[in-house]
Amino acid sequence: MQDFAKVAQSHPNKINLDESLYTSALKAIEECGAACTSCADACLSESNVQQLTKCIRLNLDCADICDATSRVLMRQTQPDMDVLRNQVETCMLACRSCGGECARHSHHEHCKACAASCQNCESECEDLLKAFPAKA
Amino acid sequence: MQDFAKVAQSHPNKINLDESLYTSALKAIEECGAACTSCADACLSESNVQQLTKCIRLNLDCADICDATSRVLMRQTQPDMDVLRNQVETCMLACRSCGGECARHSHHEHCKACAASCQNCESECEDLLKAFPAKA
Amino acid sequence: MQDFAKVAQSHPNKINLDESLYTSALKAIEECGAACTSCADACLSESNVQQLTKCIRLNLDCADICDATSRVLMRQTQPDMDVLRNQVETCMLACRSCGGECARHSHHEHCKACAASCQNCESECEDLLKAFPAKA
Amino acid sequence: MQDFAKVAQSHPNKINLDESLYTSALKAIEECGAACTSCADACLSESNVQQLTKCIRLNLDCADICDATSRVLMRQTQPDMDVLRNQVETCMLACRSCGGECARHSHHEHCKACAASCQNCESECEDLLKAFPAKA
Repeated sequence: MQDFAKVAQSHPNKINLDESLYTSALKAIEECGAACTSCADACLSESNVQQLTKCIRLNLDCADICDATSRVLMRQTQPDMDVLRNQVETCMLACRSCGGECARHSHHEHCKACAASCQNCESECEDLLKAFPAKA
Repeated sequence: MQDFAKVAQSHPNKINLDESLYTSALKAIEECGAACTSCADACLSESNVQQLTKCIRLNLDCADICDATSRVLMRQTQPDMDVLRNQVETCMLACRSCGGECARHSHHEHCKACAASCQNCESECEDLLKAFPAKA
Repeated sequence: MQDFAKVAQSHPNKINLDESLYTSALKAIEECGAACTSCADACLSESNVQQLTKCIRLNLDCADICDATSRVLMRQTQPDMDVLRNQVETCMLACRSCGGECARHSHHEHCKACAASCQNCESECEDLLKAFPAKA
Repeated sequence: MQDFAKVAQSHPNKINLDESLYTSALKAIEECGAACTSCADACLSESNVQQLTKCIRLNLDCADICDATSRVLMRQTQPDMDVLRNQVETCMLACRSCGGECARHSHHEHCKACAASCQNCESECEDLLKAFPAKA
């Protein structure tokens, strides 16, 4: 089990979301943030970096958005569910955008692996959003 | 002038948003992120911290969301405007939520100042959103 | 295998550090950053939050420092090894400080699990530092 | 006055550092983090991006390190001064490294402005470090 899951399971005030969907989405978001930071950097070392500038830009955005989303989603104390929902939606959009661009460069193994991570994260965010309570 | 504005004005590919609204929103988001980190910490030192836990939680969320929003909004290279719009909307919501809670504790000068920073940021995000192109 | 490791293995310009130590340290730093964000939040929900303010503060620092360290360490393109070494040292110190404080509250299961994560990360950083080239 | 300074001045437990040096360093670190995020992105849009990959990498590191440093330094509740000192030292090194590389590309106005921001931040960190208490 991941360290954060061990910490989270003794939280005195658990968030009102299905625990399995919640943990699985958080894992995907954490993984995707790291994959995007790493892919931006791998693209920067490619000899055709000039063709990869949009990919780098979307990787940097997706990394920043995933990292912020995982932090706000990880907090279970007295959440504002409307803020969380909107942030998870933004994360889903960022993953779709970045994953689509990475897929166009799948001859680079790092872009191919990053596209898979983005697509998994997009899908996990989508599933989690269905479990959110209706808008306030 | 702020350092980022000096850097941004020689960007070879400027973002397609009104420059004055854009710079002003970025300044407000940067200021609000810092104000929220500082207010969470000031609340933590208050003798009635037990009554401030929701405020701290929303401050931490607002800080993470503002900091991520300012980074993605600051990038002007080949943006995905739908991702940016959604992130700015989330920032507006986070500021509204955090500013509302801080305002309930305005007998603490730090909460009062943080509420003002959140309200300014919310309003700047709202103005900037009106300048965004229609959804793709 | 983690997503970032899949991305990193096709990086065109690998960093000059033992790959097994490097990957293992990055994993520990990522896990610890998330554990600390989660523990700060769990402490905030405890009825004795007043006794946990130092723990929350050190958790927030350790989360910010781990998250920044994992990003700079993950980049393999033309690194400044002196900057990386200093950042990894700071991460080791932050984990020691936070892990020590969490260990004092190990009757809370989340503090106990977070202390273990911090101790693992401190030890991984220490091992990685031995593999760094001598100071420039 | 900046918003965070307004929040910070009513903190119930002020940090044991000269207030003027402290506020001035925090301002420089915040400005430099934003300047580096912006410069990395401006470099990415340059036609000679291939010659700017080291600059982009150091900009991204410096942005992440400044942003984490400003957060941990901004917290005044029960600090671990050894962790803070080490993080401010790392920030100083990152600014020196990034500022030096940006200065090599000062024919780009954004690199010239970013180099000035880095040099100011390096100098502010150096001054603040002299005000720190002796190592524990």
